[in-house]
Amino acid sequence: MSVLIVGSTALDSIKTPKAENPRLLGGSASHAAVAASFFAPVRMVGVVGEDFPKRYLALYRKHGIDLAGLQTKPGKTFHWAGEYEANMNRRRTLATELGVFETFSPELPPAWRDTPFVLLANIAPSLQHHVLDQMRRPKFVAADTMDLWLNIALPDLLRLLPRVDLFILNDSEAQQLVKEDNVIAALPKLHRLGPRYVIVKKGEHGSILSSPKGLFLAPAYPLKRLVDPTGAGDSFAGGLMGYLASAKGSIEANLRRAIVHGSVAASFCCEGFGVAQTTKATRAAITQRVQELGKLAAF
Amino acid sequence: MSVLIVGSTALDSIKTPKAENPRLLGGSASHAAVAASFFAPVRMVGVVGEDFPKRYLALYRKHGIDLAGLQTKPGKTFHWAGEYEANMNRRRTLATELGVFETFSPELPPAWRDTPFVLLANIAPSLQHHVLDQMRRPKFVAADTMDLWLNIALPDLLRLLPRVDLFILNDSEAQQLVKEDNVIAALPKLHRLGPRYVIVKKGEHGSILSSPKGLFLAPAYPLKRLVDPTGAGDSFAGGLMGYLASAKGSIEANLRRAIVHGSVAASFCCEGFGVAQTTKATRAAITQRVQELGKLAAF
Repeated sequence: MSVLIVGSTALDSIKTPKAENPRLLGGSASHAAVAASFFAPVRMVGVVGEDFPKRYLALYRKHGIDLAGLQTKPGKTFHWAGEYEANMNRRRTLATELGVFETFSPELPPAWRDTPFVLLANIAPSLQHHVLDQMRRPKFVAADTMDLWLNIALPDLLRLLPRVDLFILNDSEAQQLVKEDNVIAALPKLHRLGPRYVIVKKGEHGSILSSPKGLFLAPAYPLKRLVDPTGAGDSFAGGLMGYLASAKGSIEANLRRAIVHGSVAASFCCEGFGVAQTTKATRAAITQRVQELGKLAAF
Repeated sequence: MSVLIVGSTALDSIKTPKAENPRLLGGSASHAAVAASFFAPVRMVGVVGEDFPKRYLALYRKHGIDLAGLQTKPGKTFHWAGEYEANMNRRRTLATELGVFETFSPELPPAWRDTPFVLLANIAPSLQHHVLDQMRRPKFVAADTMDLWLNIALPDLLRLLPRVDLFILNDSEAQQLVKEDNVIAALPKLHRLGPRYVIVKKGEHGSILSSPKGLFLAPAYPLKRLVDPTGAGDSFAGGLMGYLASAKGSIEANLRRAIVHGSVAASFCCEGFGVAQTTKATRAAITQRVQELGKLAAF
């Protein structure tokens, strides 16, 4: 089954202690769509400016991503510039130029309104709402977010949560949202905001799924070398939703393995700048790391 | 088989945002010995002053801990006072009164020199050496440490590591010791210091074993409520070594399950002040959490 993904489509200029990379393909929708494409047909909703490099459109197409929902508008593509510290755990934003993103209104091609799986990747909650408003009874809806929206669009986000099946956020966002330092104690409070499934991402420490059947403690794929973690969370969400859309059986039965596939997709993302390594992955390479992770975590 | 445990035997005064608890039973050897006692006969080497409460000796005995190596000296028992912040992740030391610990020289009863399993719990590396010097060819030696010894006794610690089979330390200590921010990349560098097995503890995020056969990513038992993490690492090491000493088969084959048992012992420790909850655990309760953890981490 297909996955519809809405989010940002951006150019990222990323500085690390070891390298500087201007205008990489970035944005939550780009990372998520590339990761999801290894598993299921992907429909991407986003906006780019006239300066958007043709090679990036070619990259989307190489992954079979349907671009009927990608608008091209007069003006510049959303540009983000950031810098990572030596240990890659902290980053600071150097520049945010919204460009055509400032007036973005996601519009779904009519044929996409019945897409069964919907990933509302990280983007303003009002736009996530706007996409859901255009959908007819999707089978499964997941939403990702970021601290920015907790700070400037909390009411919109709180209205969104009862509309989604799965809410994905990281540990510090979870702590901030429900004012609870202990992540395990935060989970029931997050469910009370609406979603049946909650995943708290903990970066290199893996993630925790909370579902009606209890918790799942998911490991992260261990990496000796982290090149650029930008987009890891988006790749996680994309890989997870792509796998879910491709798997037979119930959501509940597939969710654990979907998370591990998302985690492995994120590991490829972290090994290169932008989508450089994710795009080189294959379904077979992902499966191999999933199996390896199974052996690394078994007892 | 028996486990010999050397470490500190202390009185801990622990302040948290919610409670103040003076003169609890504490010290690395106390926590480790109680945790190990659920699995194997324990021989404890330590020192206490004349002020050491009789009820704590009774508690050791209740756990079948052999106290022939516990010296009682004129003076006061080692006393540590500390305060935890609201999220329990940071603590600061309010007082350290060494008392009889200042001149402690661990002496082994002659019959203990053949103990097959040896846990050098957190204590000055020179004392860890002194215990090993008295042993005859132990089957398996594990050493724990803390940042203090990296700062003030690094040469002693570096001389110790080639003498131990398993080195246990936490993530920030690993990063400091081999000057490597990435824990996965730090592991080969830690092996080069001597030990065949290395475990990096990551608190609530579990731990990582590195062995000649590769990595094991171990989960931590998820706790909704953390009362007092003091001694969690000691309980982890004690539970692990107790399990190893009790299990049939090779070290390599038992190490993963030993780590999970240590992790569960640590979870009980965190649920009460001092050893209050660890002492109430049973082998059956530990086994139940190990099985539960297996289900929480399976995919």
